[in-house]
Amino acid sequence: MKKVAVKVLEESGSQALQYSTTEGFEPLRKQIAKKINAKFKTNVDYSNILITSGSQQALDFSGKLFLDDDDVVLCESPTYLAAISAFRAYRAKFIEVPTDENGMLINELERILQQNKSVKLVYVIPDFQNPTGRTWSLERRQQFIEIINKYDVPVIEDNPYGELRFEGEMLPAIKSLDKKGLVIFVSTFSKTFCPGLRIGWIAADAKFIEKYVLIKQGADLHTSSISQREISKYMELYDFDSDIEKIITVYRRRRDTIVDAMEKYFPSDIKFTRPQGGLFTWVELPINMKAKELLNRCLKQNVAFVPGDSFFPNKVIENTFRLNYSNMSEEKIHEGIKRISKIINEGQQ
Amino acid sequence: MKKVAVKVLEESGSQALQYSTTEGFEPLRKQIAKKINAKFKTNVDYSNILITSGSQQALDFSGKLFLDDDDVVLCESPTYLAAISAFRAYRAKFIEVPTDENGMLINELERILQQNKSVKLVYVIPDFQNPTGRTWSLERRQQFIEIINKYDVPVIEDNPYGELRFEGEMLPAIKSLDKKGLVIFVSTFSKTFCPGLRIGWIAADAKFIEKYVLIKQGADLHTSSISQREISKYMELYDFDSDIEKIITVYRRRRDTIVDAMEKYFPSDIKFTRPQGGLFTWVELPINMKAKELLNRCLKQNVAFVPGDSFFPNKVIENTFRLNYSNMSEEKIHEGIKRISKIINEGQQ
Repeated sequence: MKKVAVKVLEESGSQALQYSTTEGFEPLRKQIAKKINAKFKTNVDYSNILITSGSQQALDFSGKLFLDDDDVVLCESPTYLAAISAFRAYRAKFIEVPTDENGMLINELERILQQNKSVKLVYVIPDFQNPTGRTWSLERRQQFIEIINKYDVPVIEDNPYGELRFEGEMLPAIKSLDKKGLVIFVSTFSKTFCPGLRIGWIAADAKFIEKYVLIKQGADLHTSSISQREISKYMELYDFDSDIEKIITVYRRRRDTIVDAMEKYFPSDIKFTRPQGGLFTWVELPINMKAKELLNRCLKQNVAFVPGDSFFPNKVIENTFRLNYSNMSEEKIHEGIKRISKIINEGQQ
Repeated sequence: MKKVAVKVLEESGSQALQYSTTEGFEPLRKQIAKKINAKFKTNVDYSNILITSGSQQALDFSGKLFLDDDDVVLCESPTYLAAISAFRAYRAKFIEVPTDENGMLINELERILQQNKSVKLVYVIPDFQNPTGRTWSLERRQQFIEIINKYDVPVIEDNPYGELRFEGEMLPAIKSLDKKGLVIFVSTFSKTFCPGLRIGWIAADAKFIEKYVLIKQGADLHTSSISQREISKYMELYDFDSDIEKIITVYRRRRDTIVDAMEKYFPSDIKFTRPQGGLFTWVELPINMKAKELLNRCLKQNVAFVPGDSFFPNKVIENTFRLNYSNMSEEKIHEGIKRISKIINEGQQ
């Protein structure tokens, strides 16, 4: 990064430090378009890309663009916590669409769309979802886009983790199946490169991008020119994908470690997901066991997780939690699961 | 900047590239608090500072925090274009408070506050205002804060240009006169350092800062860690104020050049401001002369300015325009004014 930072300042220091266009640094927009077209089978031009300050900003802007008091957002149940906050800031309401291990249940989705005329947005994370780690099957993606086309409702496809696949084939983004331009694909460099640079993007049809650009203009004019140019230069000079491979190798081992440890130590009535990529696994305790109480006991043993209740915008579900295996050594992961298991077992005696 | 970028990455590369706190980089918040307390006589602690992505983001957040459909914002007449857009995004309405060369007319301000119960925010730029270049007198600031206290309404004091004073004494910020914590002071490094880094800030009482932090969390988590650390390191290693002195020296000469040229060439029925700092002067044509028509003719001679109508949220005023003298050589400024004058004179024959 030092080399890159110096190169950017040497080659284009004055532009990098000046105001720039709201849409973002053109070479970076081209690199992103090329990347997602190759990896997720989308077919977007760089003109369909708006650079944002992380994908969180893309979610906030989506709230601003689509949502008003009491408008309804459909989301997976559970869904990403910070998306709930972003949309709630616009006083939207949520309907949780029931999901299984392959994604939203399509019959349920259609039933809800039929019954609710004030659905303004559907929010999904089809790849290695936060918090569950689950991935939508190709068939489910196809069924989903059919229903979306029928009811003509915009979709946010949030995909921060899709590039972090440990095994199996990459699946095409829902955006790649979208013929009506209803899907807005949102992603970020935060999970594959550096979160501190705060660079994300929106890939969408021109009709949406134009509106997002106006919102961005009013919100912060543009994303840091220097951060944009640094990532772009890095992608130009280095093999970005081999860096991702390194991350994947580490995360895969950590996923293996956590899943193995849970299989070994957890009582058999505790369910958990085995993610094929990303950062998270999702644990379901027996119905009478409260994740928050468990957390309180675990904290005393220096182990932490995120109780699942805050990932449900409406439902009260107290017996789930999310584990993030990406930022701990295998040794600590193993020890952590062992401690959680011990505390669970003590509680059940 | 190259030195600074390398130093930041060497000393704290991993933190600079990671997620960081929403409030911002603590040493930078301390540097900002110290700076504005010294320059503008405020009395804020670093805990009162939130780092934003440019001051535009501070305006957007203020809209989000204070404004809802049909709420009223009071502003100077004219006022900053991008603030109008930022607040309009929240479907607010504006009432323009008449101003003279010393700031808002206090009697008018009070009359409007008496008559309108839906005023939720007052927006002012007391130092070298955009677009007029005018600065509020100390007396007017004192009268203003008295009325604000009486009606208990929050104020955004937008001060991006205050450090760029060419002559005379720095005036205390309205924030420095604020005993009830109603004033939210907003500024940026964009005019004194590098706009491309997109670093601005909000200085306000804890009760407001807490809410702004929540908004920032939902909007983009935090501002680029690396940009924040670079500015902070720069301020630590170099004499920031002597850099500003250099900018001031250049801008002062340009201000002199533009004012001299306008005095020399403009017909006597054209009025203009003589700013004591900042980037802008404001020109008032005879009432029957339209700035947009003049602009069309000037563009053919490669001279441009911003017609004044868009700086009035409600009023239709077509005979004013804003000149930005900061980004042109003295030679070009002189030549530009000469050409505008020639075109005006031709039009009047």
